[in-house]
Amino acid sequence: MTKSGAAGELLVELRRDGGVALHQQLEAGIRDRIRDGRLRPGAALPSSRALAADLGLSRGVVVEAYQQLVAEGYLVSRSGGYTLVAPDAACGLRGAPASMVVEQAPRIDFKYSRPDVTQFPRAAWLRSLRKVLTEAPHERLAYLDGRGSEELRVAMADYLNRVRGTSARPGDLLICNGFAQGSRLILQVLAAAGFRRLAVEDPSDWELRSVAAAAGLEVVGIPVREDGIDVDRLEASGADVVLVTAAHQFPTGVVTSAAVRAALVAWASRHDALIIEDDYDAEYRYDREPIGAIQGLSPDHVIYAGTASKTLAPGLRLGWLILPARLVPAMAAAKMADDRGSSVLDQLAFADFVARGEFDRHLRRMRPRYRELRDTLVSALARELPELCPTGISAGLHLMTPLPLDVDEDALAAAALRYDLGVYPLSPYRLSEPGPPGLVFGYGSLTPAAVVEGVALLAQAVAEVRAHIA
Amino acid sequence: MTKSGAAGELLVELRRDGGVALHQQLEAGIRDRIRDGRLRPGAALPSSRALAADLGLSRGVVVEAYQQLVAEGYLVSRSGGYTLVAPDAACGLRGAPASMVVEQAPRIDFKYSRPDVTQFPRAAWLRSLRKVLTEAPHERLAYLDGRGSEELRVAMADYLNRVRGTSARPGDLLICNGFAQGSRLILQVLAAAGFRRLAVEDPSDWELRSVAAAAGLEVVGIPVREDGIDVDRLEASGADVVLVTAAHQFPTGVVTSAAVRAALVAWASRHDALIIEDDYDAEYRYDREPIGAIQGLSPDHVIYAGTASKTLAPGLRLGWLILPARLVPAMAAAKMADDRGSSVLDQLAFADFVARGEFDRHLRRMRPRYRELRDTLVSALARELPELCPTGISAGLHLMTPLPLDVDEDALAAAALRYDLGVYPLSPYRLSEPGPPGLVFGYGSLTPAAVVEGVALLAQAVAEVRAHIA
Repeated sequence: MTKSGAAGELLVELRRDGGVALHQQLEAGIRDRIRDGRLRPGAALPSSRALAADLGLSRGVVVEAYQQLVAEGYLVSRSGGYTLVAPDAACGLRGAPASMVVEQAPRIDFKYSRPDVTQFPRAAWLRSLRKVLTEAPHERLAYLDGRGSEELRVAMADYLNRVRGTSARPGDLLICNGFAQGSRLILQVLAAAGFRRLAVEDPSDWELRSVAAAAGLEVVGIPVREDGIDVDRLEASGADVVLVTAAHQFPTGVVTSAAVRAALVAWASRHDALIIEDDYDAEYRYDREPIGAIQGLSPDHVIYAGTASKTLAPGLRLGWLILPARLVPAMAAAKMADDRGSSVLDQLAFADFVARGEFDRHLRRMRPRYRELRDTLVSALARELPELCPTGISAGLHLMTPLPLDVDEDALAAAALRYDLGVYPLSPYRLSEPGPPGLVFGYGSLTPAAVVEGVALLAQAVAEVRAHIA
Repeated sequence: MTKSGAAGELLVELRRDGGVALHQQLEAGIRDRIRDGRLRPGAALPSSRALAADLGLSRGVVVEAYQQLVAEGYLVSRSGGYTLVAPDAACGLRGAPASMVVEQAPRIDFKYSRPDVTQFPRAAWLRSLRKVLTEAPHERLAYLDGRGSEELRVAMADYLNRVRGTSARPGDLLICNGFAQGSRLILQVLAAAGFRRLAVEDPSDWELRSVAAAAGLEVVGIPVREDGIDVDRLEASGADVVLVTAAHQFPTGVVTSAAVRAALVAWASRHDALIIEDDYDAEYRYDREPIGAIQGLSPDHVIYAGTASKTLAPGLRLGWLILPARLVPAMAAAKMADDRGSSVLDQLAFADFVARGEFDRHLRRMRPRYRELRDTLVSALARELPELCPTGISAGLHLMTPLPLDVDEDALAAAALRYDLGVYPLSPYRLSEPGPPGLVFGYGSLTPAAVVEGVALLAQAVAEVRAHIA
């Protein structure tokens, strides 16, 4: 038993008999400590230099082990060269009990992935629920088909084909509890079917990587260019499945060009590979016409994923997948085995809500609100912090800005917190592709006044961080 | 590539170099074929005798491999000595696509685990939903704590402590999507924490076994006696966790005696082991006072699991766990990683429904209905098929009857289907403990008239099966 947090305190026993590579032994040792809770989420690891010296290893061995564990989602690397246990890495239960203290959010919080839940259409939703509870046949309240309610699959196929340019039949849809469950089931089913290597965008959401590693998939990062994922690098990676946020890359905001979309489809077709298209916030596009889903170009090679968490409320826990027909039985069986299906009343209410046009109405009402927030944020940054040039501003509920190289991401986030302001560094999303420091701003749940105040406070925090360096 | 279904058609390549035991090679070969879809759910395997002859093995090797795969949930054994691929074993997706044909239920169906969803309290539920949508603070619609809504945890702790004799604080509860998800998360968290061997009742629900095997736990069956699980056999098994349906054993209906309950708690305390108490239908007890949950005797060593699927409707997908405090952080993290929480509106509506006493009212209304169905079924069996003496009749929504030894379970089930009648053999629930053939009758979703007609048809089917033998 050992504590973590500084060099000299991470005890890993290494066998130097030439049997197992040293970096693999080190990976296994750290992974075990995270799994059994001895290394807690958020705990800092020694620097690679310090740990290498401590264990009598070359620094390259430690760097290689850290990189692999970052790719698997166990660790996150932060600018300044240090490495943390990922905030939601599996925590153990035979160590001391972790506390269940719920984090208090900062007063102004640019945290990503929050829609404005104060705008949830409560009255319209209640009308749909009343209709469902009055009219739905009794058998709808029993166990359903693993794909979910037929009413909702019909309504969503119509909606997605119309609004997102997909090519979906109701029988190819599967309703799940949001993208977390949907992506986990996809990766488990693909791993069981013999898929081996998942390519992800670099940078990208890191939580999925630990899910992929748990399913037994190898994870490789592919750089994101200005027009989308680098398909040449994807080709060279040997991946048999790739996950893309093509409509609005997370976190960079890049929109995948038509040429890259075509190249992705050609890659999948050439290798009989699969594309997982996480279309998480495509409903919100402000400056140009929405771009249709890749799924519409190649229904046999794309798994399309959408969610109500960004458009209505995360609390609904509703997501949907469009599957190539050959994947439907295995995915339906996996969903049934996982939790016997999603909440039926929510599914039926959402089906009614979509079919009656309430979902379109809600989106029409929300788009100008989010656009105003986006414009307010862009203007405030241009006024207060002109060095920060936002990228990814044409869609969604977030944007990203690179940071000047002399401003440390984590020092800035810490300084901002002292103003009760939450800002979020880019580097936890990076795998191995280097890039400048940056911040990811979610603005969906803020008011315009809070955005303006938040940027003013951020400017003070930036000045403070610089004064501290100087 | 090979087809299954008869001896001579199951090609498994065996290496006879003494490296890996032959039964393990055979297990791995069959497991792979089930996983990749070449052996489909429901497919019949060759008899152990035929396969042994075909592969040049002793029959014991084949029997050992089949038994292990039955324990893991990949196979089910049926009376008459044959073995099937479990109906929901993972089906592959690179073979031919499995069909998504939804089974048509027989006209009269004694299938287990169906409450009467026609009695779902729609009006009262809608009142709760209206209250929630009118009054709930906005932030309830965002992501919640991994344990679920505090309102529901408070309401359920009060309810369970009052009605089931548990000793629960709201902070120890976790809301999940029903027992399928709850038990999967428990087994995954325990396996990650170093638990190794899960004891289950023999006979018991077989689906859990494949979940346990997938989590990396070894599964051992422990016979159920007239007063509950055999604790001496449990002691000898070396298990570090046991799953019991103590209030009303599934499928035998046995009620665990106070002595066995005390012995279970002493076992857990002695070995620092855990008891998972699946209290799936304890709300329905007809002939004597309800027996409190084991959890109340030993909160530190019992994980208690309950569900709304048997009392309200499976479609709600609501279940709850009471956890020893040291398991709460890991389970909350596992639930968040799994699907980011259960449907919030259902949770809040159920909290209101329970807190306003509507749940008690619903159960008071349903108990005499189910009791009438139970009485009708017992009387009809006594009249039409007096050889079938029901066991497990004091509680729940099902009962079991042994069958006379000259009546084959599967032949009877097949004969009954020709009368559009669904009856369900006992043997798929057995692991290795031998016992007479039997039938499990679920009666929760039938009318008294259908029960009477179903038993009359069953009597004709029994006569037909006997005539066929004679």
